[in-house]
Amino acid sequence: MIVEMKTGASQEEIDTVVQRATSLGLDTQLNLGTDKTVVALLGSNTGQLSTDTFAVLPGVESVTRIMKPYKLVSREFKTADSIVSVGGVEIGGKRVVVMAGPCAVESEEQLMKAGKAVKESGASILRGGAFKPRTSPFSFHGLEEVGLELLARARERLDMPVVTEVVDPHDVDLVAKSADILQIGSRNMQNFALLTNVGRSKRPVLLKRGFSCTITEWLTAADYLLAEGNNQVILCERGIRTFEDSTRFSLDISAVPVIKRASHLPVIIDPSHAAGHYSLVPAIARAAVAAGADGLLIEVHPNPKEALVDGLQSLTPSDFARLMEELKLIARAVGRYI
Amino acid sequence: MIVEMKTGASQEEIDTVVQRATSLGLDTQLNLGTDKTVVALLGSNTGQLSTDTFAVLPGVESVTRIMKPYKLVSREFKTADSIVSVGGVEIGGKRVVVMAGPCAVESEEQLMKAGKAVKESGASILRGGAFKPRTSPFSFHGLEEVGLELLARARERLDMPVVTEVVDPHDVDLVAKSADILQIGSRNMQNFALLTNVGRSKRPVLLKRGFSCTITEWLTAADYLLAEGNNQVILCERGIRTFEDSTRFSLDISAVPVIKRASHLPVIIDPSHAAGHYSLVPAIARAAVAAGADGLLIEVHPNPKEALVDGLQSLTPSDFARLMEELKLIARAVGRYI
Amino acid sequence: MIVEMKTGASQEEIDTVVQRATSLGLDTQLNLGTDKTVVALLGSNTGQLSTDTFAVLPGVESVTRIMKPYKLVSREFKTADSIVSVGGVEIGGKRVVVMAGPCAVESEEQLMKAGKAVKESGASILRGGAFKPRTSPFSFHGLEEVGLELLARARERLDMPVVTEVVDPHDVDLVAKSADILQIGSRNMQNFALLTNVGRSKRPVLLKRGFSCTITEWLTAADYLLAEGNNQVILCERGIRTFEDSTRFSLDISAVPVIKRASHLPVIIDPSHAAGHYSLVPAIARAAVAAGADGLLIEVHPNPKEALVDGLQSLTPSDFARLMEELKLIARAVGRYI
Amino acid sequence: MIVEMKTGASQEEIDTVVQRATSLGLDTQLNLGTDKTVVALLGSNTGQLSTDTFAVLPGVESVTRIMKPYKLVSREFKTADSIVSVGGVEIGGKRVVVMAGPCAVESEEQLMKAGKAVKESGASILRGGAFKPRTSPFSFHGLEEVGLELLARARERLDMPVVTEVVDPHDVDLVAKSADILQIGSRNMQNFALLTNVGRSKRPVLLKRGFSCTITEWLTAADYLLAEGNNQVILCERGIRTFEDSTRFSLDISAVPVIKRASHLPVIIDPSHAAGHYSLVPAIARAAVAAGADGLLIEVHPNPKEALVDGLQSLTPSDFARLMEELKLIARAVGRYI
Repeated sequence: MIVEMKTGASQEEIDTVVQRATSLGLDTQLNLGTDKTVVALLGSNTGQLSTDTFAVLPGVESVTRIMKPYKLVSREFKTADSIVSVGGVEIGGKRVVVMAGPCAVESEEQLMKAGKAVKESGASILRGGAFKPRTSPFSFHGLEEVGLELLARARERLDMPVVTEVVDPHDVDLVAKSADILQIGSRNMQNFALLTNVGRSKRPVLLKRGFSCTITEWLTAADYLLAEGNNQVILCERGIRTFEDSTRFSLDISAVPVIKRASHLPVIIDPSHAAGHYSLVPAIARAAVAAGADGLLIEVHPNPKEALVDGLQSLTPSDFARLMEELKLIARAVGRYI
Repeated sequence: MIVEMKTGASQEEIDTVVQRATSLGLDTQLNLGTDKTVVALLGSNTGQLSTDTFAVLPGVESVTRIMKPYKLVSREFKTADSIVSVGGVEIGGKRVVVMAGPCAVESEEQLMKAGKAVKESGASILRGGAFKPRTSPFSFHGLEEVGLELLARARERLDMPVVTEVVDPHDVDLVAKSADILQIGSRNMQNFALLTNVGRSKRPVLLKRGFSCTITEWLTAADYLLAEGNNQVILCERGIRTFEDSTRFSLDISAVPVIKRASHLPVIIDPSHAAGHYSLVPAIARAAVAAGADGLLIEVHPNPKEALVDGLQSLTPSDFARLMEELKLIARAVGRYI
Repeated sequence: MIVEMKTGASQEEIDTVVQRATSLGLDTQLNLGTDKTVVALLGSNTGQLSTDTFAVLPGVESVTRIMKPYKLVSREFKTADSIVSVGGVEIGGKRVVVMAGPCAVESEEQLMKAGKAVKESGASILRGGAFKPRTSPFSFHGLEEVGLELLARARERLDMPVVTEVVDPHDVDLVAKSADILQIGSRNMQNFALLTNVGRSKRPVLLKRGFSCTITEWLTAADYLLAEGNNQVILCERGIRTFEDSTRFSLDISAVPVIKRASHLPVIIDPSHAAGHYSLVPAIARAAVAAGADGLLIEVHPNPKEALVDGLQSLTPSDFARLMEELKLIARAVGRYI
Repeated sequence: MIVEMKTGASQEEIDTVVQRATSLGLDTQLNLGTDKTVVALLGSNTGQLSTDTFAVLPGVESVTRIMKPYKLVSREFKTADSIVSVGGVEIGGKRVVVMAGPCAVESEEQLMKAGKAVKESGASILRGGAFKPRTSPFSFHGLEEVGLELLARARERLDMPVVTEVVDPHDVDLVAKSADILQIGSRNMQNFALLTNVGRSKRPVLLKRGFSCTITEWLTAADYLLAEGNNQVILCERGIRTFEDSTRFSLDISAVPVIKRASHLPVIIDPSHAAGHYSLVPAIARAAVAAGADGLLIEVHPNPKEALVDGLQSLTPSDFARLMEELKLIARAVGRYI
């Protein structure tokens, strides 16, 4: 952490900064420029310190963080790639793992049809929402507990691991009964009560990026999970909010190499929520695999025209089958397989 | 809602759109342009319908929403300004209501010192956080239940209503014992479980804008509260996330006149979280009153240099006293008072 | 264009809207909802009309554009893909065209080294900046006319077409002497004097997306070029400005399928300016080819450590050679070649 | 500038950083943390150095700029407020200067009507566009030279200084004949050829903020003007591009106190372009004066319903007269006058 003093800061003001640093167990080093003094704060924990701690002191112009605020998820903390293992499927290894299924579980028939179709085409994990956070109180909010039961049944019949979203911190155990991977949605990325409880559950987690959160904030949120002893964390980029309005969100493809550089956790891409339109999903999915994503989360509905939620971004089973063939070729081109 | 068909859409495709509209109880009207057919969907509930319902149909190029997705909070639903009454203080009337106090409750002494100071300067509601959502798991998270008790005691001794944040949907009753106004934080604006429970509590609510949510999404989230029968809702603008990095967030001053036009609910401004630096707070606070805000939420700490959270954006009691004098003059200039 | 009247708008107000529409040669159709009247404006030119024309009229609540504001670049105007042909290289066909070279032309030696290297690895067009728009007046601004001469010489010796930026509307002829493709930079996407002059030159153009412009604005800017009779237009996505700060800009990968759907023009990707760091360039470049981009614009410097501009985002010749091998595999996987 | 070395960087890599710094005339100081070495670069010109210069070197993890990239516009360079004097009107002093008039000059009658009205209500400078940059090639682009003549005539008859936009670097002298203040529009804030020529003209300049440029970039662009010896620079905030869509742009009210802290230049606000709707202009204008802006730039049209450009955001003369009365009260409340 670098503390830049104001031009003409007094010796007493500089001393106050040094004293506070010392009281926090930090070493300091003064850099005396021609006009200004800059105090470097040295220590292994400066990433976890608030810059405010020093910025509030008199005579301080600015405080700049050099160390990242996250820790347990960082490559510096753990060099080797982490692999999350779910019912025999490994996420973060050579295989590009495709998770697919309907946005919302609507009925046993719908879920089984979707599940069979995506399994046949090569998906290895079934997705489906039982609890659906919706922007309007007048929209369909999911089948809730009934949806969880249908997911549990589909998991058994199809012999596929299941990923589904948990929205209430007090529902973690309930959802964990039916799901192999607990999904934390974009709007809950900074719901710290939920992060803590999911962390304690020690179940594999799929942590979606908050649609307006930086990658640094995302990795810091993941630290909540790891701090509770849960290392089974999969990161999922799903588009960020920008001024562009031809897609629902702007998929941040660069997040893949940035995460790979900064963290040991696997990262997957959700092209469906970013695009908001089925016709854009295949191009984004192909790009994700080429960029090095460890997997995909794709919405597939047996009959998108009748979907209760997000039908426009859902692929039909036949579109999905075609896309999977394309993705297999790209996976091979980058030295992986699906 | 307006459905634009593709150039050359078939009669059958147009009929399918019309049939779906009819099955949903909507009237339709065809507009036959030279190249395209446009189907207008008419009905009182089209704002609550998903555009996907029609966008998924074959031959449809685009679907445009004309009606807003929110309803109960709108000026069309209720013309007259709503006034929220809390312990004798009216928010939304002629008085500009100032809520002030420390970001986090740290101790009885700190809270009482801050409370006394802000009351003397003219604040009418005491703010203070007991539960603090923090981006890092390694930061101070508030005194929690102890903090609530301190707030309850301060409320009694200072005879001031209290506003504090609730973060867990299951803590609503607990927090409601110590607080007159339940605050829903920016990161929870779309935590629908929390919105629903706070709605059911029927207690006055301060709903902060999600830092990446549009005004339309914000008003739609407020509809969750009103849909549960809770009309005691105060909206609070606190800055949105943009590319600008000289402030923590960019305060959207235009939100004040936009909300006044679109909704009957009172709207206040939090200059502290937007600015992130005490030196910027007074200018933004003055702007808020001049723009027509119904109140302010300002962080004041007896000793910002020792604050555990957000010290840099906290005013000292004497800076706050000076600001209040400035604000009184501006309130008078716009025909109000503090 | 859809004009929504206010609830309770008078017949006279509705008539005024209809009269203005009629005076502009538009047909109108009234849609009478239960609460409101909506006037649909029909005609082939409504995309080029300002919504203000009607929004200013009394009794109007809102005006919504259905037609896009661009015209000549749209798929509706021309169905078949446009192919831009430059010195025997076709952009927009089956081949994925790689344009590579240094950010700025620094010397004959540097340019020739870079040019030879990229040609050997399979690039077919040489890039290099002679005029460099820089955010600070104290930075290196390019060799200007000397740079153009060096480019002309390199073009001849290497037998490669050259792309370089033109920044001043009055330099179009000058730059066109040395360059096969005139590049309009991101900061000039809405420099309409420049667009007009480059349009009139009838030379192939590479139009970079303004880093804060929507795709719709980008296509509308391209209409300036086509309106002057210049159809030789290549679009280039180079990252947009968002809140994310781990990359210089956020590459909008979805722009590729969105453009392919909306326009007949070829679209390429510049991974270097988006990433801002050489280590992120390969992943983004691979993603671009997988998403369906028609080409790439990549910065390569014989010695990035000594580059005068943007060294951090430049690949070395050997990194570039390795990347080209990867890209060839991906191009093949999507049915194309490099 | 702070260079953070990678964990385990070699002594040779550290030496290379130090050598490059020394060769650029910088002093260095090594800060040896437990895990990492951090090299502080000291010198008076580090703000003007590119971070790439060091980031490209082997073993470097990151480079952080401490000094701002702008110089001549900074408060550190010149402590006292700059005042720009135009035909007897001082901008940057105690008076809040209102510049008003039509968006585009349409005719002599329109311009004179608008000019008389705004003068009567207390505006001291007349605005009007002769060259109009428009997003679509099919829109009205202004009367150009004829518009300049009309402005010159209005200036004489009304005895008011005139501000108008210049868009082409080669038109600076032409426009300077009719205008007292040369306006550089938002889309041209980084048109460096234009900045340089306007800088050389030594005429008062109104530099609008690029709608996607940070305040730091804006101040750095202003340095282009001052570097040519032109100190007569007025900054104008006019809204930035964000995800919010209820206004055309989001006015960044915090820019006022941020600029006042960072720079000695006067700063004014354009509420019209930010709002995009006349009904929102008064609230934003009032906020601007309360926040400490040195002036306002407001669009007024004698008959907005017939305006050729931006009618929706124009005030009528009577709305403007009413607003001016409100603004006078607020100016007085903050110790200024209009």
